[in-house]
Amino acid sequence: MIKVAINGYGTIGKRVADAVAAQPDMEIVGVSKTRPSGEAYIANERGYPLYIADITKKGAFDEAGIAVAGDVEGMLRQCDVVVDATPGGVGKANKALYELYNVKAIWQGGEKHEIAGISFNSSCNYQDAYGADFVRVVSCNTTGLCRIIKLADEAYGVKSVFATMVRRGSDPGGIKKGPVDAIVLNPVSIPSHHGPDLNTVLPSIDIVTTAMIVPTTFMHMHVIRMELAQEATREGVLDLIRKHPRIGIVKGSTGITSTAELRELASDMGRPRGDLWESCVFEDSVAVGKNNELYLFQAIHQEADVVVENVDAIRAMMKAADSAEESIRMTNEALGLKAI
Amino acid sequence: MIKVAINGYGTIGKRVADAVAAQPDMEIVGVSKTRPSGEAYIANERGYPLYIADITKKGAFDEAGIAVAGDVEGMLRQCDVVVDATPGGVGKANKALYELYNVKAIWQGGEKHEIAGISFNSSCNYQDAYGADFVRVVSCNTTGLCRIIKLADEAYGVKSVFATMVRRGSDPGGIKKGPVDAIVLNPVSIPSHHGPDLNTVLPSIDIVTTAMIVPTTFMHMHVIRMELAQEATREGVLDLIRKHPRIGIVKGSTGITSTAELRELASDMGRPRGDLWESCVFEDSVAVGKNNELYLFQAIHQEADVVVENVDAIRAMMKAADSAEESIRMTNEALGLKAI
Amino acid sequence: MIKVAINGYGTIGKRVADAVAAQPDMEIVGVSKTRPSGEAYIANERGYPLYIADITKKGAFDEAGIAVAGDVEGMLRQCDVVVDATPGGVGKANKALYELYNVKAIWQGGEKHEIAGISFNSSCNYQDAYGADFVRVVSCNTTGLCRIIKLADEAYGVKSVFATMVRRGSDPGGIKKGPVDAIVLNPVSIPSHHGPDLNTVLPSIDIVTTAMIVPTTFMHMHVIRMELAQEATREGVLDLIRKHPRIGIVKGSTGITSTAELRELASDMGRPRGDLWESCVFEDSVAVGKNNELYLFQAIHQEADVVVENVDAIRAMMKAADSAEESIRMTNEALGLKAI
Amino acid sequence: MIKVAINGYGTIGKRVADAVAAQPDMEIVGVSKTRPSGEAYIANERGYPLYIADITKKGAFDEAGIAVAGDVEGMLRQCDVVVDATPGGVGKANKALYELYNVKAIWQGGEKHEIAGISFNSSCNYQDAYGADFVRVVSCNTTGLCRIIKLADEAYGVKSVFATMVRRGSDPGGIKKGPVDAIVLNPVSIPSHHGPDLNTVLPSIDIVTTAMIVPTTFMHMHVIRMELAQEATREGVLDLIRKHPRIGIVKGSTGITSTAELRELASDMGRPRGDLWESCVFEDSVAVGKNNELYLFQAIHQEADVVVENVDAIRAMMKAADSAEESIRMTNEALGLKAI
Repeated sequence: MIKVAINGYGTIGKRVADAVAAQPDMEIVGVSKTRPSGEAYIANERGYPLYIADITKKGAFDEAGIAVAGDVEGMLRQCDVVVDATPGGVGKANKALYELYNVKAIWQGGEKHEIAGISFNSSCNYQDAYGADFVRVVSCNTTGLCRIIKLADEAYGVKSVFATMVRRGSDPGGIKKGPVDAIVLNPVSIPSHHGPDLNTVLPSIDIVTTAMIVPTTFMHMHVIRMELAQEATREGVLDLIRKHPRIGIVKGSTGITSTAELRELASDMGRPRGDLWESCVFEDSVAVGKNNELYLFQAIHQEADVVVENVDAIRAMMKAADSAEESIRMTNEALGLKAI
Repeated sequence: MIKVAINGYGTIGKRVADAVAAQPDMEIVGVSKTRPSGEAYIANERGYPLYIADITKKGAFDEAGIAVAGDVEGMLRQCDVVVDATPGGVGKANKALYELYNVKAIWQGGEKHEIAGISFNSSCNYQDAYGADFVRVVSCNTTGLCRIIKLADEAYGVKSVFATMVRRGSDPGGIKKGPVDAIVLNPVSIPSHHGPDLNTVLPSIDIVTTAMIVPTTFMHMHVIRMELAQEATREGVLDLIRKHPRIGIVKGSTGITSTAELRELASDMGRPRGDLWESCVFEDSVAVGKNNELYLFQAIHQEADVVVENVDAIRAMMKAADSAEESIRMTNEALGLKAI
Repeated sequence: MIKVAINGYGTIGKRVADAVAAQPDMEIVGVSKTRPSGEAYIANERGYPLYIADITKKGAFDEAGIAVAGDVEGMLRQCDVVVDATPGGVGKANKALYELYNVKAIWQGGEKHEIAGISFNSSCNYQDAYGADFVRVVSCNTTGLCRIIKLADEAYGVKSVFATMVRRGSDPGGIKKGPVDAIVLNPVSIPSHHGPDLNTVLPSIDIVTTAMIVPTTFMHMHVIRMELAQEATREGVLDLIRKHPRIGIVKGSTGITSTAELRELASDMGRPRGDLWESCVFEDSVAVGKNNELYLFQAIHQEADVVVENVDAIRAMMKAADSAEESIRMTNEALGLKAI
Repeated sequence: MIKVAINGYGTIGKRVADAVAAQPDMEIVGVSKTRPSGEAYIANERGYPLYIADITKKGAFDEAGIAVAGDVEGMLRQCDVVVDATPGGVGKANKALYELYNVKAIWQGGEKHEIAGISFNSSCNYQDAYGADFVRVVSCNTTGLCRIIKLADEAYGVKSVFATMVRRGSDPGGIKKGPVDAIVLNPVSIPSHHGPDLNTVLPSIDIVTTAMIVPTTFMHMHVIRMELAQEATREGVLDLIRKHPRIGIVKGSTGITSTAELRELASDMGRPRGDLWESCVFEDSVAVGKNNELYLFQAIHQEADVVVENVDAIRAMMKAADSAEESIRMTNEALGLKAI
């Protein structure tokens, strides 16, 4: 059993914890939290040993009736791999600690590529992380781009990509961040940083991206245009997507045209937290233009799609599965993930 | 086993179906849908026989690969009780059909009291529905008011109530209704209809209500002021709430101050669809004024709180449990509902 | 003086009325309304004779203290040109009436091209409307596309366009339409209808468009990618835009990155209703790629940009200005429109 | 002419500047800004001398083409009164500076009562500020409560007040603050601080308030219940409101039921920035209960209602008008404010 610790039991961390706990070859040895929030109660309820960054704050947890197992150093002593899911930019400062305790570490896309030197997406470069000590799982948006672009590139060759990301302003559980009523260019300059970030995983792709933020919480939406090197058909592309283990299709017959309806469907399907770990391509949007341009909309669940990638990264780093296919199959089966 | 049909497998109907299916003494014999939507897929997946209102539309379901068991009349022939969860105002037209097929029927709060003559809340008037043929379960907001007001009235006597309901504009899965950026008085006149609606269940309560709609999807929020006849203390009120099987307490130590964080907690707890069947009183809001006025905030999950009431109404009508306590206990246990 | 009537004094109609009234060569002879709303009060206050569609409803206006001048037929008898600003799809039914009263008519983009046979944008095809009896001013989004694409095409030649329109869910004064929390693909299929609509004005442009709706009220946002036939530079493009009378530049030094801040600026500038009649290109977004692809973001004020186009259309139809340049200059001067 | 400086030319400051500039007995001698934003351009355009807090940042303004007149100290040397409209909590630190330059100063409601010792509302306690050196104008919400409660108290005697404030999450021009989709109790405890804040102006009122934040930008909404000492009628209350110079009535015949429609009306009326300086009571909401409880909804424009109060405070402090009536009349006339 691979012993996994989660440093930062928040939006991503709590999901990775549950996904890891569901794997037959992994176990959670601890999760960490800085304050006695609702999520700390949940950690207790799930039976995940709860560690805190600053042990002098144990009193606050005691008062709230939340059991504390020790400090983060104590957690690191128990684990083979730590998944750092602290807020963007914080993870960097933790690297020295992970080195000190000699544990393998995974960071999220909020950190820079340089923190690990390997940026990871299981459908693209599983072998790069095989046996590695430090890996960075790319952000939810880059993960979504990686999956579909790699698929198209292998089948047809991708000459260029132009993608627009329309991003949610806040996660559903958030109350501080806006906007309330605005479309915010973020960044206002073109291209955005998402293209270069994709290139940390797929260096040879010629890509320009733009991004904006809108007042919604449920998912991001990508509009993608790819110029293909070889001739493609709409049906051919849909067939490829249907076979991909991490890309689902929102069928036209469902009548679903929005992120809200899609999350409702996931909720109705009984997915934990209504999570969509797969990218969701809208069937009716897929179109091929006269010069082999491929167009499509895909919705990306910002809280969920990287969760399964973290699980695969653990397996790659621990050499617990020899190929991406094997790890993806194991991860998906353990979660009951059959792409929509 | 009580045979239950759900006429209208939408936001409320699909939840009642799952709650009924979870009961040891009930089974779903059919659910109905008018169009081959995402929810129709879910009905198939859950194994609920799917009936359609207009059998000439079966072709559209066939095309979408959705199995249809027959028409609504066929469904009514199978059941002891039908739960009408069609959109507000539509249920009225179905009454003749239910009479024709001689089935007991439950309507939701979108219909008028007169449709059934009995308006129901299991914590208030279970016995009124005992053996009845027609019952109306009051709306989500009235359900929330009934629970807390009845509790206070029994313990202290309630001289008057003033309540403001700040309502969500749309359910999370909705995309058509607004507002996008407005506070809408609905109605603009004071008092709103919610007071008289409460009086269909609790006739002797002196109540004035106001209501508005805001651009959010997760829950309604109630601000309640009650003048009590007898002396009360904050702790005494909190103790009463803690013992109530359908009212939960949002502890101050969780740091939760909003509907969004509350739904996140429910989701983290593994509740199906993140549903909060219980009213959620904010611990830190409960206050008693110098003249025994009781103040509190409670959040009401509009999609969920009536679900358990429908289950209890079925038991009352079928004389399957002799008391409210017994039915509530059975319903809660089957769902794993331990109020937060 | 050209005598102008406005049929439908709503979001667009009231703005066209004020813009017409501000012109030295035009006057408003009447505006129409179906109900005694807040806008009807405003019509009275501005001194626009108010006509109503159904004269039997005059009593309701009398009760509200709103003066009524007569019925719509009466209004048509007074005018040279009627601007039909009724809700999309309604205008079609009015055509027979306009023919009966022998008045020239302008429709908005909610109607189909065929209603008039001439779709209009003053920067593109002023001469097509010269002396015409029936003209359709294209929608706010198509207007925004027309201006910038025509500009680029004249200067560099446009080989192809790919544009995504991120649209507001409701106008600021609306309370019914959503979505509250969703990104809605509208349409879900690619391409959207906006490309063909642009081709009614600029037939030779090769264009693919996509569109979605988000929960905001202030403006639409366009992401545009154009392949240019000739070499272009960022500065060259910015210079062209600076000279365009109907395209403004949101300077980087203002720090403005959103629709909300842009409308705040317009409001601070004292623009009536905070209206932005010009397209608003974000300076920092303008970029030229290695193969002469031009990229930019532009914000479009959905309530305002077509207003000035309607004024120019009137002049063209009445042969009151011989060239687009002349009419645009007159319209802009009368409104004090100096593009941002 | 009273020489007025505005320290902090933002949401409130820019409005106070324009209102002051419109007065026959006042002039703007300077406004201050920390960064070269869109508002700094506007200051230049309006001809208000622009001063900056940190003169070493002048280069950034020069680059942006914005003229700077000097530093804040220079501005203070020119003025009789400074209106501090810096962000809440910042104003406190400026007091020593104002004392050093021996200028009278007005703070906004974001500062504590103690900063000035006099909390001000022109309809309630104009004389308290007469000749004073330091005055605090209470917040937008407290201003709205003061006006209506004082009116009711003088006419009928107010025994107790219970008010709920449903507050906007962000101003329309804001893009950072949320919530996006939540009702946030702020504070979660009852009572909120608004009651004690009202008591700084009207000490004898017995008041309990609650407050929440919702995802909208246009206005706050107040639900108010007052127990009156003497008998009242709905018509009597409406008559009193009609005569009040700073409370308007949203007539039922306009069909307006929301904040969004109300701001649209203000915009249509040609109000600068669509500002509603008056409290807006909804005619159809006003109701009197059987025990002389007065109920009503009022909308409060958070950016505007305190603007006119600041102007009156200047006159009181400078002894430029002997009575509240006189100052209010002068302020309203100069702005063309005839309450809706």
